[in-house]
Amino acid sequence: MPTLDVRESWTRAAAAPTMVLATVSSDGSPHLVPICSVIIGQCVYFAIDEIKPKATQRLVRLGNIEAEPRVSVLASHYEDDWSRLWWVRVDGVAHEVQQDQRSMALDALARKYPQYARHPPTGPVVEIVATAIRGWCASVDAGAA
Amino acid sequence: MPTLDVRESWTRAAAAPTMVLATVSSDGSPHLVPICSVIIGQCVYFAIDEIKPKATQRLVRLGNIEAEPRVSVLASHYEDDWSRLWWVRVDGVAHEVQQDQRSMALDALARKYPQYARHPPTGPVVEIVATAIRGWCASVDAGAA
Repeated sequence: MPTLDVRESWTRAAAAPTMVLATVSSDGSPHLVPICSVIIGQCVYFAIDEIKPKATQRLVRLGNIEAEPRVSVLASHYEDDWSRLWWVRVDGVAHEVQQDQRSMALDALARKYPQYARHPPTGPVVEIVATAIRGWCASVDAGAA
Repeated sequence: MPTLDVRESWTRAAAAPTMVLATVSSDGSPHLVPICSVIIGQCVYFAIDEIKPKATQRLVRLGNIEAEPRVSVLASHYEDDWSRLWWVRVDGVAHEVQQDQRSMALDALARKYPQYARHPPTGPVVEIVATAIRGWCASVDAGAA
C-alpha cells in the first residue's frame, strides 16, 4: 500500500476541486459536508457562501467547530480502474479568520474558482491549521492523471 | 436551496461509486476514509478488502466504530458547473455483520463492483443502519447526469 509523501499529498490536496469536511457535533456524532477549499502553506481554507439561505448549515458546521475545533478534510480520487485510486487526508484545528487572513483566503479562492471570482463568498472564512497529513495511493503511478 | 426528497437521496447514494465515511476516534476527533459501498433497504454496507496489509486502517476504522457506532457517510457530486452540484448524507449506527448479512452485502458489492466480483473482500463487513438521510442539490435539475 504505497503512501504519498508529504509534499505530494499537499500538491494533490491543493489541486482537488472539492474536499469533504468532517466536524464533530456537540452530541459526539460526526458531521459531513463537501467544501471548496484552497491551501496556503499548511492550512486549508474554505468559505461559507452566504449566511441567510444556509442558516442551518452555518449553525451546524461553524457551531461544531466552535465547540470542537479538531476537524478532518479528505480529498479523494475515484475511477473504475482501482489501481488509480488515491486519497489525502488532512487533520487539523479549525477557526474562523478575519481581516487580512480572510482577504488572503478569499483572494486564493477566487483564483481557484471562477464562481468565487464572480460572486465572492460573504459568509465566514474558516482556516484549518494542519496537525497531520496522510496520503495513500493504490499504486505508485496512481493519480498522475 | 433545493432539498432532495428521501427517495431521490437514497437513489443517488446507491448509485454513487464512492462515499466518504466519517467515524469519531476515542479522543473525540473525526476520522475520514473513502469507501466503496452498497445500499440495501435503509442500510449502507462496506467491506474491508483484507486485514493484514491494512492493519492500521482496520484498527482505526473498526476500532472507532466499536467505541462510537455513530457514523456518517457522504456521497457528493462535483463539476465545474456549480448549478449541478449535489450531495447526500446518511447518518447512522454502524456495526460489523456476520454470516447471512455478510454474504448478502458481499453479493451486492460484487454486483456493483467488478473488482469485488473478481476478488471478494476477505475482511470485516460493516452495516450502517440509517437514522437520517439528507440530500441537497444546487438547482432542481441538478444531478440528472
